[in-house]
Amino acid sequence: MSRFLSKKYATLTPYVPGEQPRDMKYVKLNTNESPFPPSPRVVAAAEQEANRLNLYSDPECTELKRAAAELYGVEPKHVLPVNGSDEILYFAFLAYGDDQNPFAFADISYGFYPVYARFCDVPSREIPLKDDFSLDYRDYLGIREHILIANPNAPTGTTLPLWQIEEIVGSNPDRVVIIDEAYIDFGGESCVPLIHKYDNLLVVQTFSKSRSLAGARLGFGIGSEQLIRDLNTVKYSINPYNVNRMTQAAGVAAIEDDDYYRANAETIMTIRAEATEQLQSLGFTVLPSCANFVFAKSGSVSGEELYQKLKARGVLVRHFTKERIKDYCRITIGTREQMQTLMTNIQSILAEKG
Amino acid sequence: MSRFLSKKYATLTPYVPGEQPRDMKYVKLNTNESPFPPSPRVVAAAEQEANRLNLYSDPECTELKRAAAELYGVEPKHVLPVNGSDEILYFAFLAYGDDQNPFAFADISYGFYPVYARFCDVPSREIPLKDDFSLDYRDYLGIREHILIANPNAPTGTTLPLWQIEEIVGSNPDRVVIIDEAYIDFGGESCVPLIHKYDNLLVVQTFSKSRSLAGARLGFGIGSEQLIRDLNTVKYSINPYNVNRMTQAAGVAAIEDDDYYRANAETIMTIRAEATEQLQSLGFTVLPSCANFVFAKSGSVSGEELYQKLKARGVLVRHFTKERIKDYCRITIGTREQMQTLMTNIQSILAEKG
Repeated sequence: MSRFLSKKYATLTPYVPGEQPRDMKYVKLNTNESPFPPSPRVVAAAEQEANRLNLYSDPECTELKRAAAELYGVEPKHVLPVNGSDEILYFAFLAYGDDQNPFAFADISYGFYPVYARFCDVPSREIPLKDDFSLDYRDYLGIREHILIANPNAPTGTTLPLWQIEEIVGSNPDRVVIIDEAYIDFGGESCVPLIHKYDNLLVVQTFSKSRSLAGARLGFGIGSEQLIRDLNTVKYSINPYNVNRMTQAAGVAAIEDDDYYRANAETIMTIRAEATEQLQSLGFTVLPSCANFVFAKSGSVSGEELYQKLKARGVLVRHFTKERIKDYCRITIGTREQMQTLMTNIQSILAEKG
Repeated sequence: MSRFLSKKYATLTPYVPGEQPRDMKYVKLNTNESPFPPSPRVVAAAEQEANRLNLYSDPECTELKRAAAELYGVEPKHVLPVNGSDEILYFAFLAYGDDQNPFAFADISYGFYPVYARFCDVPSREIPLKDDFSLDYRDYLGIREHILIANPNAPTGTTLPLWQIEEIVGSNPDRVVIIDEAYIDFGGESCVPLIHKYDNLLVVQTFSKSRSLAGARLGFGIGSEQLIRDLNTVKYSINPYNVNRMTQAAGVAAIEDDDYYRANAETIMTIRAEATEQLQSLGFTVLPSCANFVFAKSGSVSGEELYQKLKARGVLVRHFTKERIKDYCRITIGTREQMQTLMTNIQSILAEKG
């Protein structure tokens, strides 16, 4: 830190993204990317747009909002495209959080939530998941904080049924309830339709996972016209041209090629079921997952050891040092070939232990 | 605004970007874009990267930093790539501004500076330009605020010599001095080399103007290792993957095709000289410009009227309603053909006035 940095950031701990080591070629099962390339229509659309990069992108993202609105069954005024869904989460902390308006979220969830709270100087309360890492929706009924829930949750993969989400939203009419649906396309039920009924619901989606666009950076906020207007005010106070031309075009094309991504998500879910079974047969505890990853604990190797030994063998998974989950590793669902490599290596690591 | 929006934003006025009307095809001379397409190498690099969008972009922007460092004659640790240079300005207000650390900038400059100050709740002081719209560097020597200067300035186009920048930086060792060099490639002298001598200097550059990448969103902060570390901390607390894959690749390719952009900038400067002469012969006052635009005032038509009548004729220029500059229009330098269309229309508007 320089001697100029504002005192307000003296104790800041930034987010640490999943590692991207460049020393060798890894089987990358650590950042929940899709193993499938973007649709050929996406590639073609981005390519075409590259010729027009001398012109600013449309700050209103008109075409993209139109396409996304149709996809989500809402109107364009209910949609705000952003530079990856992290950005809309940040905007929401800025817009709704302050001394008088704290946030609540689970103790085990996306690691960026507490970073945003601290960075934005918003008081927050972490609500513990149950012992089995399930989220009890009753902990969130009629509370005094704005609410942020990842559904399905990360890194656990567990999901809430729609009626429980609705109970939470309906019982907190004077609080904003943010449902982060980054992983919704892998078996969860989206609460987007509820935005027509509740003006306090903000749904966050991303094209990084099911739509193979992690590298394009594209996320969405979906909510009532008033919420989207708030978040637009934040956007226009920070970075009006936040989504570049190529990504806007790629997003439209991805929406138009919906079948491609639905098929890929189906494939991921099938491989997830197979991987779960294989891990269980190797003595792992695997949480029930509705995401493109599984959260698994070996009966004989620690989470840290498994992570380290897999890395040494060229397979990256994600391990978190947080006490409650340190026995687990989060493993992204890759292709069948990638999962086979993973399983072979796990078998060899377990065999070494005797 | 929703009833949930934090009170801290009750009186917020967001930035208003240059209009992007879609009702007809305009000659667009209002947002300082390059009239030249990106280099073919840039297009090819972005295209190739589009095939890998399923993988996250490198949050460290390793290759891009390496290339940019070489371009600017610094080391990678002195460079932070961002999602358009607006983002690095925002980061700097966050990192260095607070109650005890106000900012100072010119009264007539980039309209986003006061927006950032208010949005980030940073006290600010606007230092008036002289009557001829020049900036007197002596107004900035040994002051108590962090300093933000656009050099060349927008919307005026005027520039400061390097020695005056150095005087400002050197006389404020305990303040951060931010020099926004968005337009530096059109005749100004960059102060990047001074970062080796002064740890309080942050230089902001963009690839939106001279490098024909407005639609890709790519800017840079360049400064001492400590300043860049501060700004990285901010980035990793907000949006670690802020620069997408295609833009990182486009940026590297743009740097590798430096000659292409230098030639384009030369052409712009030549056309600027011609346009200045033509406007003067039509009775305009034209400020001396080192940017890819001219700031000009007609002797017979108001700024508002000229803007409106040009728009009705299919030519967009930018008009600001601020009292001191309301007689002026800011006109981006386009191709010779575009400038010819502009001049023909101005002649016709002037002729109508009799």
